Amino acid sequence: MIMANADIPTSHTDVLIVGAGPAGLMMATSLAKCGIDTRIIDKRGTKIFNGQADGLQCRTLEIFDSLGFGHRAWRESNHMLEIRLWNPDENGIIRLSDRIPDTLVGISRFQQVVLHQGRIERFFLDTMQECRGNPVERGVLPTELHIDESLVDDCDAYPITVRVRHLSESESTPDQTATSANGQAVQDGLFRSNLTTDDTHELLERANLDSKANSEGIIKAKYLLGADGAHSWVRRQLGFKLEGDSTDYIWGVLDIVPITDFPDIRMRCAIHSASSGSVMVIPRENKLVRLYIQLTTTENAAEGGAAKADRSKISPETILASAQKIMAPYKITYRKLDWWTAYQIGQRVGTSFSAHERVFLAGDGMMFMIGTCMCVRDRLTLVLPAVHTHSPKAGQGMNVSMQDTFNLAWKVASVVKGTSSRAILKTYQSERRRIAQDLINFDHRFSRLFSGRPAKDVMDAEGISMEEFKDAFVKGNMFASGIAVDYGASIIVAKAGDTTNQGDGTDVSASAKYRVQSTQSLAPGIPVGKRMPSVKVLSQSDARPWHFQELLPSNGRWRVVFFVGNLSNAFERQRADAIGSDLDHEASFLRQYTPANARYDSVFEILAVHCAPRARTTIFDFHPVFRPFDEVDGWDYAKILVDEESYHEGYGRIYETFEIDQEVGCAVVIRPDQYVSYVGAVDDIESVNKFFAGFMMPAREKYMATLDAPGLKVNSNGVSATIAAPTAT
Amino acid sequence: MIMANADIPTSHTDVLIVGAGPAGLMMATSLAKCGIDTRIIDKRGTKIFNGQADGLQCRTLEIFDSLGFGHRAWRESNHMLEIRLWNPDENGIIRLSDRIPDTLVGISRFQQVVLHQGRIERFFLDTMQECRGNPVERGVLPTELHIDESLVDDCDAYPITVRVRHLSESESTPDQTATSANGQAVQDGLFRSNLTTDDTHELLERANLDSKANSEGIIKAKYLLGADGAHSWVRRQLGFKLEGDSTDYIWGVLDIVPITDFPDIRMRCAIHSASSGSVMVIPRENKLVRLYIQLTTTENAAEGGAAKADRSKISPETILASAQKIMAPYKITYRKLDWWTAYQIGQRVGTSFSAHERVFLAGDGMMFMIGTCMCVRDRLTLVLPAVHTHSPKAGQGMNVSMQDTFNLAWKVASVVKGTSSRAILKTYQSERRRIAQDLINFDHRFSRLFSGRPAKDVMDAEGISMEEFKDAFVKGNMFASGIAVDYGASIIVAKAGDTTNQGDGTDVSASAKYRVQSTQSLAPGIPVGKRMPSVKVLSQSDARPWHFQELLPSNGRWRVVFFVGNLSNAFERQRADAIGSDLDHEASFLRQYTPANARYDSVFEILAVHCAPRARTTIFDFHPVFRPFDEVDGWDYAKILVDEESYHEGYGRIYETFEIDQEVGCAVVIRPDQYVSYVGAVDDIESVNKFFAGFMMPAREKYMATLDAPGLKVNSNGVSATIAAPTAT
Repeated sequence: MIMANADIPTSHTDVLIVGAGPAGLMMATSLAKCGIDTRIIDKRGTKIFNGQADGLQCRTLEIFDSLGFGHRAWRESNHMLEIRLWNPDENGIIRLSDRIPDTLVGISRFQQVVLHQGRIERFFLDTMQECRGNPVERGVLPTELHIDESLVDDCDAYPITVRVRHLSESESTPDQTATSANGQAVQDGLFRSNLTTDDTHELLERANLDSKANSEGIIKAKYLLGADGAHSWVRRQLGFKLEGDSTDYIWGVLDIVPITDFPDIRMRCAIHSASSGSVMVIPRENKLVRLYIQLTTTENAAEGGAAKADRSKISPETILASAQKIMAPYKITYRKLDWWTAYQIGQRVGTSFSAHERVFLAGDGMMFMIGTCMCVRDRLTLVLPAVHTHSPKAGQGMNVSMQDTFNLAWKVASVVKGTSSRAILKTYQSERRRIAQDLINFDHRFSRLFSGRPAKDVMDAEGISMEEFKDAFVKGNMFASGIAVDYGASIIVAKAGDTTNQGDGTDVSASAKYRVQSTQSLAPGIPVGKRMPSVKVLSQSDARPWHFQELLPSNGRWRVVFFVGNLSNAFERQRADAIGSDLDHEASFLRQYTPANARYDSVFEILAVHCAPRARTTIFDFHPVFRPFDEVDGWDYAKILVDEESYHEGYGRIYETFEIDQEVGCAVVIRPDQYVSYVGAVDDIESVNKFFAGFMMPAREKYMATLDAPGLKVNSNGVSATIAAPTAT
Repeated sequence: MIMANADIPTSHTDVLIVGAGPAGLMMATSLAKCGIDTRIIDKRGTKIFNGQADGLQCRTLEIFDSLGFGHRAWRESNHMLEIRLWNPDENGIIRLSDRIPDTLVGISRFQQVVLHQGRIERFFLDTMQECRGNPVERGVLPTELHIDESLVDDCDAYPITVRVRHLSESESTPDQTATSANGQAVQDGLFRSNLTTDDTHELLERANLDSKANSEGIIKAKYLLGADGAHSWVRRQLGFKLEGDSTDYIWGVLDIVPITDFPDIRMRCAIHSASSGSVMVIPRENKLVRLYIQLTTTENAAEGGAAKADRSKISPETILASAQKIMAPYKITYRKLDWWTAYQIGQRVGTSFSAHERVFLAGDGMMFMIGTCMCVRDRLTLVLPAVHTHSPKAGQGMNVSMQDTFNLAWKVASVVKGTSSRAILKTYQSERRRIAQDLINFDHRFSRLFSGRPAKDVMDAEGISMEEFKDAFVKGNMFASGIAVDYGASIIVAKAGDTTNQGDGTDVSASAKYRVQSTQSLAPGIPVGKRMPSVKVLSQSDARPWHFQELLPSNGRWRVVFFVGNLSNAFERQRADAIGSDLDHEASFLRQYTPANARYDSVFEILAVHCAPRARTTIFDFHPVFRPFDEVDGWDYAKILVDEESYHEGYGRIYETFEIDQEVGCAVVIRPDQYVSYVGAVDDIESVNKFFAGFMMPAREKYMATLDAPGLKVNSNGVSATIAAPTAT
């Protein structure tokens, strides 16, 4: 118990985040988009560091796009298009043996890219500022955590108390920062200039740290996120463990501008040498290439290689020498070294992701390798992230971490706002711990295939089959895209089956009274539990083509999409009008859970997709619920879409692609994180009402409280919305 | 003559720009990209103002993209996809009569959009900062101009002297700024937040103006650009006139968030009422719509409408009343008014665009309507821009102004750097005054068609035929895209024919010794004189698809592109090697005009486009001149392209699209502004040498001077390039 102390100032926040890496920043940004009061602290005094590039999955780019900065990542990153597999030939010489597209064709509008983590953090910080979120409080160390268990079920309580101490500048500066500031890469023209422009503010802030040094504070919070990485302080306070194992394989990493005659140095390559180990080539921005280089082979690992390796002798020179051996007869060297490290492969996952659904854990923590491996070269330790850990070569770590908190943020936001009951919070562990387990299993197999010696021939039972390796690579591609994620049945996913089997074992089912079944056959192309797929549709009012996902920005809102068919037909026209009337009815979810004085689309956005000829249709052919009126802003023109060919950007054929019968239609409920909750009959509003009744909180008692929530007053296009009179109360 | 005065500090700059509107900022940004020392002054104390949205042509967006911010304009703008023509039916009631795509399909990878001018200026200012260009000096008024004619032919001289005075804050603040700050629109959430974030710096700067108030300075410059709009001070100093006429038609402009049952309010519409005049609807960002509303009809104009109109009575209310009359029976009103103005249509063009090729004029000046119409309502005067003026409805003004200075900037930059002779500067007037004349002719016809009363029937000789109007609209679309621009034969465009006939009458021909003929038939799809068209090609080294134009960023460099065919064939392989040897020869343009100690691609970028199977080709199949080596950065991987299908972004078929025979190939010379100078035989390096000999300056004598030019040290990808040893000297 943290004792009240008159000398220590106490402040309150809805959500406190510990750790300002990608996972923590994703949480802070997503909450800022929802208008939730959030604080984010980090013990480090600055965000500037080298290295730390990582692959961005298709799904991560989709998420970035939903937050408004996908295009920045897309432009600045290096795009990886093709994977090339180099294997030993019959003479043991490496040869190009296969080519695979780096991203499966057609699974997303984005493809996997690589970008420096510093840029990714910059995008988050800029977006937080634009949404008027609180800035990161740097150089702030949490020292005590107390959870008042008697308050955890009280929605309005602040059961969490955290004591923090402000560090001095020297305490909050990792040694590595000083090291990397002397690196060659940060001396580069444009690269430096980007950092300079962006980080001036941070550098100034840092200089002010000392004025607060050693002062203390108490922060009381409704919710706490531990996204504090390798040696997570939050996890240790909770006493949670990581389960899994480590291998004896040691790998080195070099970020260099290579000088080489190896012809595929700008491709992603997996190079398996006959007996010297493997190299993974990851081309990066600005002519940089990251090489993952195996330092211990199966043979010396079997002799306890990792334990025996003289860790103090690992250096860029020794890592390069290994690469040269593996890549021979090609030559490789460098004049520019941006960053380097070494690590031991291991896979671990946390036993629990949450305490009382008040404290949550997330984040992979690979970023903290920098602290253990760069600065203290003789203490090369196994990295232990906050929740799960795996080898970075599959490019999964940062992605999964950010997707963890993207999954969590809207749930916490809707509970804090009073829109949802606390029941939905259990789905965080159920959905994300399952993903972590799947990832660990994938990575376990993949890293062993990659670290093993290639089989000489089919009789070589101890060697790895290169066919099997290629197969794992191809299958892993879908996994690694992030698109394959398929959340199990739960209170927020209306799927058949047992919720405990489909998640990590946690019971997250809706009570029987509110259990709803999807009719997946109405839209086989929109699988319930997966993220909403996307093709181009046109806006009825102005003929502009949009990728459907662009209509689903991350701002905490649910979407209910009605595929209403062809309104030129009297039957479909009447049916659409009836849907409109049902939605407009006092008993509908729309009226029940939208606060009476809030904007009409503050909780649910109603979208209609029709397939009548666009030129003979106007928005006035639709019930007003599909084009709500505002006394100052007029009609809403953005919510009626049409399935028609665009002038310049092709034809999405959304009904055909999603296998929706034009006459039958369907209704689709999409979560605020773009995952599909429900597919059902287009005019079965009753089922949608029932689905939301399972976890939503009636709006009447709480609408006064939401009037001041900043997020509710700005719509998805950034247009200021005036508080409209309630329509049906 | 400005007298030397010991009390007035004197400074030097290569280029001085007067006026920081879009034309001036385009010049400053383009010069900053080339590393030219530039100063830009503006008498206004701040850039913040309302209104001033304008259509951005396809070509303007291509140019923005070449400067690195096309994506920002594309994302933030409202996209216009379809034009709808509303005409009176047999009962005189307006009806939808036609639909036309707003941008012709296939002419560009961009389509016309509308964006607030403040955002466009922001993109320029950000880019200038990134390139370390000088910031705009605001509140600085030029008071005297002197040109020392004895020095105009001396490349290194500073023949221009301008005396300037720093204004106080109140002197430099247009009344309109204060007015618009009280408008409703700037109170909007996101809109305001954008401005706030962006303009904090400017606002702080503004507060400092008074400390310098009334101090004076002398600026000596090699070149001067007058981009100072309506009442151009620079033009008046030169004594140049505008020629053309004005009409008696008065139009009003309202920027509003409309509340209306008119169904096409989010489309670009031309509404011709039977006898109440016309309205043009231009949908904008954030639910805003701009309406151009005719206030005087043919009938009252014939009675001297403009002269007789009681100008003091023009107000938003009276303009709205006109719109309501024209758009009846539809209702239209508003609660949010963002900006309004009124103007009299006229078309004028300057008699000359340059004095001694030392002082240049550019800029349309429509922006200054704000000063005359908004603040002083009873002084509704005809707007007189710096060079040419025309009606804004065609959306041409700002575009043509920016394209003027985009044309000029690289020419001035290459002369200042010593790369080119001063002979190329005459092509500015020859190329751009011709464009202005064409625009005036187009606009003259278009505005009369739009302002006229629709014909009641074929017997109504005084009425305007709606068929003729539609025809003008469709034809105007190509013109209005900016893509149709076709520069005539000149010292920098190797076309047949008389240069004076093809431009504005100025003689800009190369001397007979250096005259080169293009062989257009080798690539009919790449018309000499027009901007380089674009389709997707793949980078050989990493399979990444690029739109060809993306490979032509605006940084002052010429590109010479070799379509070398299929290098799997021995003949084509040998031919490509021979081309490489010729380029590498001491006598080639590449070696002659590239400063000995500068980066290999600082003046010319050599690109190769081949069509051999990508998977069986590497960059090492090419002569090193196509993949230059740098001792620190290794091989250049970016300059060899392949015509092959991409995994995710289609198939450009560049040989087929540009009608280039795969076996024959061709060489293409592309100017730094993306216009095509020459098409010829792929291995005829001699003609290319001759072409460049017509205006380029041998590098040997001047290379020392260029070593410090900042633009030369950063390559197109922003990678810092080390000075490489000369290859062939």
